[in-house]
Amino acid sequence: MSEIELLKTRILKDGKALPGNILKVDSFLNHQLDVMLLHEMGKEIAARFKGDGVTKILTIEASGIAVASLCGLVMEVPVVFAKKNQTANLGGDVYSASVESFTHNRTYNICVSKKYLSSADRILLVDDFLANGRALLGLSQIVEEAGAELVGAAIAIEKGFQGGGDMIRRKGIRVESLAIIDKMDDEGNITFRA
Amino acid sequence: MSEIELLKTRILKDGKALPGNILKVDSFLNHQLDVMLLHEMGKEIAARFKGDGVTKILTIEASGIAVASLCGLVMEVPVVFAKKNQTANLGGDVYSASVESFTHNRTYNICVSKKYLSSADRILLVDDFLANGRALLGLSQIVEEAGAELVGAAIAIEKGFQGGGDMIRRKGIRVESLAIIDKMDDEGNITFRA
Repeated sequence: MSEIELLKTRILKDGKALPGNILKVDSFLNHQLDVMLLHEMGKEIAARFKGDGVTKILTIEASGIAVASLCGLVMEVPVVFAKKNQTANLGGDVYSASVESFTHNRTYNICVSKKYLSSADRILLVDDFLANGRALLGLSQIVEEAGAELVGAAIAIEKGFQGGGDMIRRKGIRVESLAIIDKMDDEGNITFRA
Repeated sequence: MSEIELLKTRILKDGKALPGNILKVDSFLNHQLDVMLLHEMGKEIAARFKGDGVTKILTIEASGIAVASLCGLVMEVPVVFAKKNQTANLGGDVYSASVESFTHNRTYNICVSKKYLSSADRILLVDDFLANGRALLGLSQIVEEAGAELVGAAIAIEKGFQGGGDMIRRKGIRVESLAIIDKMDDEGNITFRA
């Protein structure tokens, strides 16, 4: 079974579509982590961006870290994770962006120390979920602010019907999602984009 | 060079001892992640707990996730990360503990969904840092609450002079730290425990 089929099969088996367009995949992707599956996903992402000269992966805490780390292992590049709501420990010299969260109905800041992004970098964004695309947008703004090259974005699960992926693609950013969900209904049925 | 020497060498090269007993290692451990180094550390941890029948790794968001994931990959076991300040998404059915943070001078809650820890589990705690030991203590309480077996704790960097590791060891919990720092001075010198 291909890496993508592995993921889709797992979503159908263990994912739970809940009212309010919530997809719970916390048994393998964002609370409990099936790191073997994540490693396979990392291999697939690495294959898709092979030859693009990625020098660094940028993700966002917390649930992006695992898939980004396993992807970084396969691609042999370091991973930087953007922090939410900057702590004093990080120091003041940061790139930052504001992100609207629909899930939590609030706006938060993400930031990355200027030391870890440079204009010489070719950045791949990696995240577990893409829904409204606000987090990815914030990360892409940080890459732009750093003067680095944005190679694209790799996502485990895109909720296609929420439009964020298409919004990001319209900006000319390459988005590779391993599974795109086009429909979830109240009976818990999940339909993937063909 | 052994995995431990790799880590110690890196701490001396890239770590920064700051006033207030702060050790900044955000160039490779908790903001930018050297995933190749973390993988080597995972191999060393796996070797130390080989034969202990670990079924699952438990860590805490956010900076524990990377080292725990790479450790889980080597040990071929799933990883669960405790969430700070429970979100609505997680649902109500959780094990939780209260953790005092000295760095941020506040108390926060950590929680794990009851679905992902069972009395049949043999749990290894993994984290990037051990200082006062409050986070590790909270995780161990959650393991106890779940009725699971606590095999021990594996830590990347222990700040030995802050006493948390010894406090945890006095409770009879096996703690394996890859690097234990016994002294940091105001000139930025770092002394490892022999």
